[in-house]
Amino acid sequence: MTQLSDAKKGVATEQIKSVAKAEKIDLAVVLRRVAEGKIVVPHNPIHSPKAVGIGKGLRVKVNANIGTSMEHCNLGEEIKKAKVAVESGTHAVMDLSTGGNLDEIRLSLLKMVDVPFGTVPVYQAAVESIDKHGSIVDMTEDEIFNAFEKQAKQGVDFAVAHVGVTKQSVERLRKQHRLIPMVSRGGAFHMAWILHNEEENPLYKNFDYLLEIAKEYDLTLSLGDGMRSGAIYDSNDRAKFQELLIIGELVEKARKAGVQAMVEGPGHMPLNHIRANIEIMKTVTKEAPYFVLGPLVTDIAPGYDHFVAGIGGALAGYYGADFLCYVTPAEHLSLPGVDDVRQGVVAARIAAHAADLARGIDRNVDKEFSQARENLDWNKMFKLCIDPVKAKEYRKNRPPHEDPSTCTMCGKLCAIKIVNEYLRNSG
Amino acid sequence: MTQLSDAKKGVATEQIKSVAKAEKIDLAVVLRRVAEGKIVVPHNPIHSPKAVGIGKGLRVKVNANIGTSMEHCNLGEEIKKAKVAVESGTHAVMDLSTGGNLDEIRLSLLKMVDVPFGTVPVYQAAVESIDKHGSIVDMTEDEIFNAFEKQAKQGVDFAVAHVGVTKQSVERLRKQHRLIPMVSRGGAFHMAWILHNEEENPLYKNFDYLLEIAKEYDLTLSLGDGMRSGAIYDSNDRAKFQELLIIGELVEKARKAGVQAMVEGPGHMPLNHIRANIEIMKTVTKEAPYFVLGPLVTDIAPGYDHFVAGIGGALAGYYGADFLCYVTPAEHLSLPGVDDVRQGVVAARIAAHAADLARGIDRNVDKEFSQARENLDWNKMFKLCIDPVKAKEYRKNRPPHEDPSTCTMCGKLCAIKIVNEYLRNSG
Repeated sequence: MTQLSDAKKGVATEQIKSVAKAEKIDLAVVLRRVAEGKIVVPHNPIHSPKAVGIGKGLRVKVNANIGTSMEHCNLGEEIKKAKVAVESGTHAVMDLSTGGNLDEIRLSLLKMVDVPFGTVPVYQAAVESIDKHGSIVDMTEDEIFNAFEKQAKQGVDFAVAHVGVTKQSVERLRKQHRLIPMVSRGGAFHMAWILHNEEENPLYKNFDYLLEIAKEYDLTLSLGDGMRSGAIYDSNDRAKFQELLIIGELVEKARKAGVQAMVEGPGHMPLNHIRANIEIMKTVTKEAPYFVLGPLVTDIAPGYDHFVAGIGGALAGYYGADFLCYVTPAEHLSLPGVDDVRQGVVAARIAAHAADLARGIDRNVDKEFSQARENLDWNKMFKLCIDPVKAKEYRKNRPPHEDPSTCTMCGKLCAIKIVNEYLRNSG
Repeated sequence: MTQLSDAKKGVATEQIKSVAKAEKIDLAVVLRRVAEGKIVVPHNPIHSPKAVGIGKGLRVKVNANIGTSMEHCNLGEEIKKAKVAVESGTHAVMDLSTGGNLDEIRLSLLKMVDVPFGTVPVYQAAVESIDKHGSIVDMTEDEIFNAFEKQAKQGVDFAVAHVGVTKQSVERLRKQHRLIPMVSRGGAFHMAWILHNEEENPLYKNFDYLLEIAKEYDLTLSLGDGMRSGAIYDSNDRAKFQELLIIGELVEKARKAGVQAMVEGPGHMPLNHIRANIEIMKTVTKEAPYFVLGPLVTDIAPGYDHFVAGIGGALAGYYGADFLCYVTPAEHLSLPGVDDVRQGVVAARIAAHAADLARGIDRNVDKEFSQARENLDWNKMFKLCIDPVKAKEYRKNRPPHEDPSTCTMCGKLCAIKIVNEYLRNSG
């Protein structure tokens, strides 16, 4: 039984009830949207994370990618990253490890992460294929599916499957003459495999088999964005939409099979392309939950890509994206460290909240916060703000002397105080 | 003679020529827009800064506020802030000092800042009034106008005048019952003055006199946003638009008098309010250049307000705002330090560039950068990116070992390398 198959029968699982309660939405509405595949609740009973709903009408959620690489591998550091990510308020964690003992790392992280936990199983298949066969392109179909099955059995809640990288979309990619043809690792593995073996992508060809595995463990599939644009110049092009059309068909297949599925999106994209991208994705997939990386609204700000992605993410969330994959300041430069993870989560949470506000959700938090600001009630402001540690630090480093109720920006020229003295006491 | 009065006669000043060249726009177009008041070129001949155009069709520009406060005053630190702001690429600097010897500070900063330099003259009038008369509300009309004239004579290129804070708009503010009635310092000074003295705002009542002063020095007026919303809850309300209607009339008066004028905007504002705000401002002022603070798209992220303002600023710029006043991470918490200034400028520049890209401007920079990324040409990427120091630092702190052409995120699993091996060499 999956959350989706239960919902189709009109059965509200504990998780669905919990989502409805947390989001303050009528249970019947949430239940219907899960049944229609418009909301997913990634929840593998083996892991049994907190219930997090992603999709139509819900708050925008945030995912943090962590994991080792072949160049830098330190399990202790990854454990710290997972801890910081969850403490900073991420709604999900993905382990993208490609270095070290992948099973050991995954099991260690799964044990300590109490929110939905995602992976990209083809990474493990690819890395092991290099060891076994000497190259990625020699991995066997079985090895790919076995990676999905093993990880689902370990408790993974959602997994990326690059099902839209097919002979057809690779051919369209070739004719696209992109500036940067492909920046997705998983996408590149499949593309290379297809070209080298002159065979169709196994995950596409045998999608039904993938669905069987997913159904057994209620593994939510994240239909991966192999063709996402890696440059502003390549945004919203034919290659990307070809992949989306293929994915759209497979989303419907997944729903029919009772398997939860979401769809991944861009990528690098100028601000003015975001709305169309999201609207088209939503019609083409009949409103599947949309999991976006960024969008990154410029290519030229490495070191600040958490911020670049936050601009795009806020706008994407406003237009209907449901799940923001954070980007850290280290993106495009190196594997992120622990503090990069914290910065990435905070930036994505701000973007998600800005999107929620724009959609009329959760405005009371800001109202309560601003009431505290009007009252110059610093303790309450610190209690309600997104990162109290950082905010307190600023105030502590440069404290007001003359008037402790104000701050060192304005001191006794504080507009709020002047208003209280003159406007409130007049008329 | 002002840039505007010259332009009206069809005379292209050196500054106007320089703007047209820098923006790659036909000189006749820029000249016409300056003549119509749709572009300003803040340029007091006494200071004679670099020519920077702000307004219709031009790249979005960035302003950095620096300056002492009554709580924290250190000229050396302000000089460092000015240096860092200009080095980080700000297009203008404003000195908002309210502590210490204001003339000395201003003259010191004016000497070293080679971009347009702005102030809020009423700050000096208010601070001196506290010394002289014991309170802000006892400052005389002459003292207000004298502050404008003295600062213009010192070389200030643009100055904020809160001309829209009038009896009428204050009355509307009262009936608005805002969560936070007013957060603008200058606005609060004028509001208090009006209520205490039961007199009209001198800058409104004797606007013609302000125009005479401005005209003599080609002081560009920035018609200040006293009623800007300080909370999401108060966004786009009647008080704000009342002020805007008044300002709209005065912009037309300024244009007739040959005085350059721009208009200031919000403030705290949810993402979904930004477009309407900017479109209405543009019709009501007949396309005056729009100088926005933020917009800040949530109230609850002190410590990250450079980022919060960047989200709003990018969207505002896309919809037609011309000039982004940066916000630093210290905003709402303390006077910013030198590093806060750097962070604020970089965030605002990213937002401005994202807006430009969305409007089809300057896309070649990103294209060239992404070509370098595709070539894994790290030196070229560092040369072209917004903050090379920061980007190099990331790469240096965690350098790749196995394959120096990649980074520690992917190492030999680099998608760009795989694409080069398989896609480029096939078919």
